[in-house]
Amino acid sequence: MSQDAMEKRVLDAVRQRREVVNEAVDDDLPMTEPDRLYEATRYIIKAGGKRLRPTISLLVGESLAEVEPLSADYRSFPALDGWEFDLLRAAMSVEVIQSFTLIHDDIMDEDDLRRGVPAVHIEYDEEAAILAGDTLYSKAFEMLSDTGARPEHEVEAVHRLASTCTRICEGQSLDVAYENRTDVSPEEYLEMVRLKTAVLFGASAAIPASLMGADQAVIEGVYQYGTDVGRAFQIQDDLLDLTTPSEQLGKQRGSDLVEGKETMVTLHARQQGVDVDNLVEADDPANVTEAAIEDAVGVLEAAGSIQFARERAQELAEQGRSDLTMLPDNEPRQLLDDLAEYLIARSY
Amino acid sequence: MSQDAMEKRVLDAVRQRREVVNEAVDDDLPMTEPDRLYEATRYIIKAGGKRLRPTISLLVGESLAEVEPLSADYRSFPALDGWEFDLLRAAMSVEVIQSFTLIHDDIMDEDDLRRGVPAVHIEYDEEAAILAGDTLYSKAFEMLSDTGARPEHEVEAVHRLASTCTRICEGQSLDVAYENRTDVSPEEYLEMVRLKTAVLFGASAAIPASLMGADQAVIEGVYQYGTDVGRAFQIQDDLLDLTTPSEQLGKQRGSDLVEGKETMVTLHARQQGVDVDNLVEADDPANVTEAAIEDAVGVLEAAGSIQFARERAQELAEQGRSDLTMLPDNEPRQLLDDLAEYLIARSY
Repeated sequence: MSQDAMEKRVLDAVRQRREVVNEAVDDDLPMTEPDRLYEATRYIIKAGGKRLRPTISLLVGESLAEVEPLSADYRSFPALDGWEFDLLRAAMSVEVIQSFTLIHDDIMDEDDLRRGVPAVHIEYDEEAAILAGDTLYSKAFEMLSDTGARPEHEVEAVHRLASTCTRICEGQSLDVAYENRTDVSPEEYLEMVRLKTAVLFGASAAIPASLMGADQAVIEGVYQYGTDVGRAFQIQDDLLDLTTPSEQLGKQRGSDLVEGKETMVTLHARQQGVDVDNLVEADDPANVTEAAIEDAVGVLEAAGSIQFARERAQELAEQGRSDLTMLPDNEPRQLLDDLAEYLIARSY
Repeated sequence: MSQDAMEKRVLDAVRQRREVVNEAVDDDLPMTEPDRLYEATRYIIKAGGKRLRPTISLLVGESLAEVEPLSADYRSFPALDGWEFDLLRAAMSVEVIQSFTLIHDDIMDEDDLRRGVPAVHIEYDEEAAILAGDTLYSKAFEMLSDTGARPEHEVEAVHRLASTCTRICEGQSLDVAYENRTDVSPEEYLEMVRLKTAVLFGASAAIPASLMGADQAVIEGVYQYGTDVGRAFQIQDDLLDLTTPSEQLGKQRGSDLVEGKETMVTLHARQQGVDVDNLVEADDPANVTEAAIEDAVGVLEAAGSIQFARERAQELAEQGRSDLTMLPDNEPRQLLDDLAEYLIARSY
């Protein structure tokens, strides 16, 4: 299959499941009193998002159940022993956790924009943003403890989600701590990304496997797939900031560099002796020229840092794909395989 | 039994269980990496606290199991069918949720002191406080999904804790909203207190009952006990601010009044036409005289507002005690009964 055909297939699969997830928001996260709290709670979820994590949950479920893609009712989905449970609600719980982390991270990182709209602490206020995040947090656990799966499987899934959230907090804590250090190694960065970003991809894959009663080896296999693909995804995000034209990126190319955000690329460059802090002179992405970014990227390329990051992303995606052999060989598994490839091939 | 003997018995029972809970902190919430995150996470828990909620959990467990108080191993505690589980870890999970809410509430309410020490966002910073709260949140769910109870009981307990956390967020949201209103009724206030404070007392009682496999009527009965006693506890706190001498209270008597904090007392007084906003002239508890507070309390007494609040607390404590008939008639139940009485009789 050509690269283009693969991309189309993956994007279709994600879009179809995104639509299902978007429709489920009103059922699983209904508007209720107090109005202002629930408006703030739903605001970022309603603002959009690729829904990659719940898509992974749904695909893992479909692969394990060996059903035709999109043919089974996600609300009464067959576990491996035929016991039915709400796979969509489980998938939603990881998306809800993702939204909670975005809201709290935006407060901590003082990021004012999210998904093209003002962040919750800007659109509402900081109190509302703390509370909206806290509400989504408990809502996710309400959902995941109410899927109708066999209790022993549900307990396992809940414990996975809880420990994943702890890891995410640890990752965010490291991210904050690393801002004050210039000697962070690419390995430390990768571990931070694993905790902050990748474990939730892992949980997205492992939770449906747990709920369906899969073997521990399968659960751990798809968990590995998620954490590998999640790290590859983040490195690719870092690369896109440097290599994608601004108009396609939807923001100034090289903003991370201008804002002094460390990535796999800059940390490798530091180790090669590049004076990363003075690569571009501007302090604000609004005041930087395309030529200045082009020069900076040239230096990073010459240091081998772009290539280094690209290879790490490719290795992780490869590793993720190899973990999928634990799943039955069917179309949903192929889509998970394509997704791993697409996430590092995408250009925006 | 005399009032004094009852008080001593309750305080002994609480102290004994507080010591057990305090000793369990290092096991259930160990120091780990990143250091700064886990220091901030344990800081408020280590700073003290009465441990009323886990005490209620332990007493409900002991009553249902019909064991001699403090005789059974809380770490392998007998459920009703003999299946063993970790009651102490379940009790700890509610205390951990309580700590998370204190940390986030202190940020939102801009309270700089907690348990006699600087609040987490003061001692560390706001980022650290948001993250410490978020970490405790997931830790509580990690603990409660790892008690070793029968899975169907554990799922029920987890779902109870999750929906309780959602209610707490709703209560905090109402509390914030009510700050901008002067027409809040005592009934609305009581509902806010039920959500913000009392449901966690309810969960503290209901969770061990669920984990032990008690009947739904018993679970709901002890949940009612908790929410009634929790509301009585909060109203008594409001009353103590007005009626306890400053030296005994450990802070300026009447601070709530000076700071404009609405309580059951002030909301009732407003309905009686009292100009609550001008009851004391000072804006800062540091600048108010004992005589000015005495005068203000006199006005509130004349309006019947102190009496009104006291009666509500008594009714709720009575109601809570009557719910205990669902438990076997034994010493732990008597202690829960005494505790309800003590919480509204205490003078600090």
